[in-house]
Amino acid sequence: MAAPMSPDELEAALRQIGAERYHNLHPFHRMLHGGKMNFGQVQAWALNRYVYQSAIPRKDAALMAKLEDRELRREWIHRIHDHDGLGDEAGGIERWLRLTDGLKLDRAYVITKEGALPATRFAVEAYVRFVYEHPPLEAIASSLTELFAPAIHAERIAGMLENYSFIDEHLVAYFRRRLDQAPRDANFALRYVRENARTPEQQQAVLAALRFKTDVLWAQLDALHFAYVEPGLIPPGAFRPG
Amino acid sequence: MAAPMSPDELEAALRQIGAERYHNLHPFHRMLHGGKMNFGQVQAWALNRYVYQSAIPRKDAALMAKLEDRELRREWIHRIHDHDGLGDEAGGIERWLRLTDGLKLDRAYVITKEGALPATRFAVEAYVRFVYEHPPLEAIASSLTELFAPAIHAERIAGMLENYSFIDEHLVAYFRRRLDQAPRDANFALRYVRENARTPEQQQAVLAALRFKTDVLWAQLDALHFAYVEPGLIPPGAFRPG
Repeated sequence: MAAPMSPDELEAALRQIGAERYHNLHPFHRMLHGGKMNFGQVQAWALNRYVYQSAIPRKDAALMAKLEDRELRREWIHRIHDHDGLGDEAGGIERWLRLTDGLKLDRAYVITKEGALPATRFAVEAYVRFVYEHPPLEAIASSLTELFAPAIHAERIAGMLENYSFIDEHLVAYFRRRLDQAPRDANFALRYVRENARTPEQQQAVLAALRFKTDVLWAQLDALHFAYVEPGLIPPGAFRPG
Repeated sequence: MAAPMSPDELEAALRQIGAERYHNLHPFHRMLHGGKMNFGQVQAWALNRYVYQSAIPRKDAALMAKLEDRELRREWIHRIHDHDGLGDEAGGIERWLRLTDGLKLDRAYVITKEGALPATRFAVEAYVRFVYEHPPLEAIASSLTELFAPAIHAERIAGMLENYSFIDEHLVAYFRRRLDQAPRDANFALRYVRENARTPEQQQAVLAALRFKTDVLWAQLDALHFAYVEPGLIPPGAFRPG
């Protein structure tokens, strides 16, 4: 096998995956941010994305269940705090539910995930399962899509506020908060991967983990696009815009 | 199958398991608390018990990875904080390491777990694995040994301070803290089990989970007793006092 990459080469390869495969490139996001969606399509997006958001603390707990290093657990746990909240801080999932509230979706219906697309649930559970089943290094690498998230959040905030009368500042609170949180998380994970993926095998595994994660995100938009844009074939049982 | 027990009957059955099977009944604990151990035996106990302490956050994370209910995760996470610490609070594992420091055990050696008895590691990993593999209700029920913990902690604090010149107030900080934490945790888990174990099958499963957990604790003392008390057969590679 070839010699290992340097940490800088590895980072460049990771960033290249983002440039080629991150879901900001998906036509669904182009339409969403560009004001090309109707109210029902934005509802469908927020409803399905809730499935992903609400699974993130389980994913992070699945990782922590494998971490023998107490210092690493002490660092990682703030991700669960960010999403679930801690004490008086309500957390990101609650902020997401304010978005779905604002989009006139019944909160209990959102939380049951009953109206979400099966493909959304499968993709999200594949992510949680990946973290269960892979070594911590690969699980941590799979979080590195956050390297690419701030750009999409900034674009989303601007595009959605500008283009949709039903979206206001209150509803984009989730994304505003992630503008600070995601870089902190991504930088920590990137440093960890740079330092710990040393052999060619480990480096290929972390690249594969990040590609896998971009697939998880992309597949969710494919399913939304198919059901709610083109051809617009909503599966049995899934949310049907009013 | 018989009719389900009432919540009070279930609680009585759970407490009966403690009365019959909790490791306070083990002769090793009787000796430990009664001042019958020498320095090396107390060292061996603290070294092995670190394996258990240090695995508890992984066990709790494994449970959280299964919890779909955000409120339940928000409640449960404080157990990880209690053991790993949060921010400036160092946490219970650090307090345990102060005990092993005080017993003149090298901290790096303790943390590697290299000197621990294989049977200790097997029992502890069986506990983490149980939580991975069983439904949340049973995983939560397995934590209910904490119902019985305050009595043993109080006995341990008094007995060890009185009987061992090498144990001082600083070294029993872990147990002092658990006197407050364990009842809070146990009461929450007991309420959860009372409310959620409704069918006879669920009730038998939570009783089995608690019996399993008492086995996990008991097996650790059997191994310590065998290696360091009688017949005193220390396995290859395990800690050898002084």
